[in-house]
Amino acid sequence: MAAQITGGFFIGSRQVQSAERFFAVNPATAEKIEPGFSVSSENDVEQACALAGSIFDRYRAISSEQRAHFLDTIADNIAALGEIAIARAQAETALPQARLSGEIIRTANQLRLFASELRDGRWQGLRIDPAQPDRKPLPRPDLRLRKIPLGPVAVFGASNFPFAFSVAGGDTAAALAAGCPVVVKAHPAHPGTSELVAAAIIAAIKACGLPDGVFSMVAGSSNTLGATLVANPHIRAVGFTGSRQGGLALMEIAARRAEPIPVYAEMSSINPVILLPHALERRAEALAAAFLNSLTMGVGQFCTNPGLLVALESPALERFTRAAAGGLPQKPAATMLTPGIFANYNAGVARLRSAPHTKTLGTGAESQGPNCGQAFLFSVSAADFLASPKLAQEVFGPSSLLVRCTGDEQLPAVLEALEGQLTATLQLDEGDHALVRQLLPVLERKAGRILANGWPTGVEVAHAMVHGGPFPATSDGRSTSVGTLAIDRFLRPVCYQDLPQELLPPELRA
Amino acid sequence: MAAQITGGFFIGSRQVQSAERFFAVNPATAEKIEPGFSVSSENDVEQACALAGSIFDRYRAISSEQRAHFLDTIADNIAALGEIAIARAQAETALPQARLSGEIIRTANQLRLFASELRDGRWQGLRIDPAQPDRKPLPRPDLRLRKIPLGPVAVFGASNFPFAFSVAGGDTAAALAAGCPVVVKAHPAHPGTSELVAAAIIAAIKACGLPDGVFSMVAGSSNTLGATLVANPHIRAVGFTGSRQGGLALMEIAARRAEPIPVYAEMSSINPVILLPHALERRAEALAAAFLNSLTMGVGQFCTNPGLLVALESPALERFTRAAAGGLPQKPAATMLTPGIFANYNAGVARLRSAPHTKTLGTGAESQGPNCGQAFLFSVSAADFLASPKLAQEVFGPSSLLVRCTGDEQLPAVLEALEGQLTATLQLDEGDHALVRQLLPVLERKAGRILANGWPTGVEVAHAMVHGGPFPATSDGRSTSVGTLAIDRFLRPVCYQDLPQELLPPELRA
Repeated sequence: MAAQITGGFFIGSRQVQSAERFFAVNPATAEKIEPGFSVSSENDVEQACALAGSIFDRYRAISSEQRAHFLDTIADNIAALGEIAIARAQAETALPQARLSGEIIRTANQLRLFASELRDGRWQGLRIDPAQPDRKPLPRPDLRLRKIPLGPVAVFGASNFPFAFSVAGGDTAAALAAGCPVVVKAHPAHPGTSELVAAAIIAAIKACGLPDGVFSMVAGSSNTLGATLVANPHIRAVGFTGSRQGGLALMEIAARRAEPIPVYAEMSSINPVILLPHALERRAEALAAAFLNSLTMGVGQFCTNPGLLVALESPALERFTRAAAGGLPQKPAATMLTPGIFANYNAGVARLRSAPHTKTLGTGAESQGPNCGQAFLFSVSAADFLASPKLAQEVFGPSSLLVRCTGDEQLPAVLEALEGQLTATLQLDEGDHALVRQLLPVLERKAGRILANGWPTGVEVAHAMVHGGPFPATSDGRSTSVGTLAIDRFLRPVCYQDLPQELLPPELRA
Repeated sequence: MAAQITGGFFIGSRQVQSAERFFAVNPATAEKIEPGFSVSSENDVEQACALAGSIFDRYRAISSEQRAHFLDTIADNIAALGEIAIARAQAETALPQARLSGEIIRTANQLRLFASELRDGRWQGLRIDPAQPDRKPLPRPDLRLRKIPLGPVAVFGASNFPFAFSVAGGDTAAALAAGCPVVVKAHPAHPGTSELVAAAIIAAIKACGLPDGVFSMVAGSSNTLGATLVANPHIRAVGFTGSRQGGLALMEIAARRAEPIPVYAEMSSINPVILLPHALERRAEALAAAFLNSLTMGVGQFCTNPGLLVALESPALERFTRAAAGGLPQKPAATMLTPGIFANYNAGVARLRSAPHTKTLGTGAESQGPNCGQAFLFSVSAADFLASPKLAQEVFGPSSLLVRCTGDEQLPAVLEALEGQLTATLQLDEGDHALVRQLLPVLERKAGRILANGWPTGVEVAHAMVHGGPFPATSDGRSTSVGTLAIDRFLRPVCYQDLPQELLPPELRA
């Protein structure tokens, strides 16, 4: 596999070049990066989707072991991408090298975890009700259930994880594991990285002798491209990680199709962190330091960034705010992923800063280059927060808002007023347990993951992970985009009644 | 529990009477049945939903065993409804007594099966990834997953199963089992039956000491009522069985909410039956007789009625059509559920009858009373069928269309052209296996349940049942409305990260 960037997109294994081009921009220098990338047309999208549809039955018919081997091969190819891919991703995203090399390992391990899940077999959800020929008043037929893949899946690469949530990220891994061909729309902010990863997948398809069309990748910077992809009748499900506006647009397109399809859009979360009284009393300063690390990690560009702190007024809370405000200036501004994300971040910060009842508690070091996001911490009273729902809107980047509650009843009221979240975090000590017991039912209704004494950034790829949550954290809180349970989003159950043994799928035979 | 009909609806245990009234109509006599039924207002809907929302956390917090006991108690109460309920249901639906008493048993057994599923515990989908404190480069946190209920569920009673798919039917049983309070919209065709069943549920809530509001039932004959219910912000999911038009309307309302919610609408299916050559050759006449029974059972008013036959032209197919046409006149016309269903059935039959390329193969005995549906069998060539997509639209009632294929390639083409289905049935012999192997991948993509040598009517309530299927059979092919897997439609996963043991849900503790 030659790791070279040609600027083409992929209709199956066929790399396509077009006259119309778009360019990646290095956010650290605000300069274009060569080469230009070919823009996929509506016809290209149709071809990729039709190809995926045409080989769907062949791909889903291969054994779990063959599919597992395929995922392992993609993992090997991605792990082998090496310096060229890291350098390209660094130029396209301004993310640090260590983070990117770690993300490549995470991406490969994620594929390998799905491979092991395939070998385990649990994903098929097999159920058997044997026939009861002598049952009265009527005999019971033989019923056997397995889950099968939905069909070709459209995956939208995310800007903030150029490997782990992009071309070969969680949704692609889950869909391919489920037996669904994948058509990726590359994120226009990192087209070169996308091409390298796409080539690694195509190489694995060839090496494993799988049908051409199991994977395609279209590219372009217009919203129309994504809309065309979601509307294509061959596409049977959508995976998306991005803005609320973008996710809502895709949900609407999917709902209006002649045949509506599921959309798994991860959109918007402010990830409340509740600082409980005893925990604050015992370790206000340590919590402040840990909070600042979570807030500013990756320039705050995580879906699970702690954008909201909730606490009861107390002297210990003052210690926390002093420590946080004091530590913030030591946090350097750093380049954000794209000029657009930087502009949106500044607009969000300006909104919080100029809101009538917020105070600026502290600011990070000032920006020093293009697209450098500066950290911010604001505060507001619970009463004002409850009266201003807009304060709870996500600001994607290293900004957070402390909501100060007076009296125990304001704490659950603030949580109850929140929209759906990916995560909710409790900083607690044993003395806080009674209060936490009151809050847990609210948090369960609001979030997909509840953490104690950790920080929401850092999402483990595991069997019990839920990276999801009620709307608008995601479009479908019944699902997760990280962890092995993610395979379930691309499956549906089929029941076989009284089928002769030799016609049954092998896994359902006696 | 007094089995008496007052004409009221239920906001929790409070029975409400209103000035505005509507009446059930006896379809066999076309006469109104007393008493009049109170029409729920928008404010009544809001009250019922708000009550459900207010006790959701309390209801979901009770143990699986308590919930199982509650379902068993409802089952006991329904099984005890007896003659009054059967007589009332018979007057409201014209369904025969034996069918209705069997349906009561089915409804009670369905509740008991969910009770046993709750005791089994599998429904929670528990997953545990223990902490790995020594893992490099970072320790792994402790991750524990369980599924929790979505919240209050709106259930629309269906006309064709006044017990088993209505007030205490599959969706209600699955939702209550999952821990979701339920607000039923009673089907306006059987309000008296609905009231009796609702009272049985309310009595169980009292007997089990559960919070008032776990169950409410609103009533009325306007579409606005259902729209108001689905739009209510307390409602978190919808279960519906009915027409395609009705289901699509609810899907649209749900998608336009500030917080979109899942809709499980079972809408439209013609349930293809493929008569394979060797099976036809060996038993054309027996197949014809069995087909006519399935077609006319319950005046064809099943979601799984065999509305389409597909076969290759052959002398054996002629034997089948002769036998079917010959047997049809012995099938009496019988009263359909409502004047509206009867009118729609006649319109559908007229559409098939007058279509340019169809032939009428046979007709059942002529109608003899009001709303009596007569059976029909039509035929059409595969080429004409493929050219006229409207011929594949559901005609709810005892009408079926035989599609005659010439050449092996027309058979898969006809199946490929079908929309999503609840079921697909294969009448096959050993000599047909090779051909069936070609068809199975298509059928898996099209249907939720694939049967061999049976008939699609008669849906077993079991662990491995799938009563669902791709759009438009249902709005969400990832789910089933019958069988224990139905509980999953009302659940979502939550992950607990590093929670102290005593704060974890009991089922997730060490």
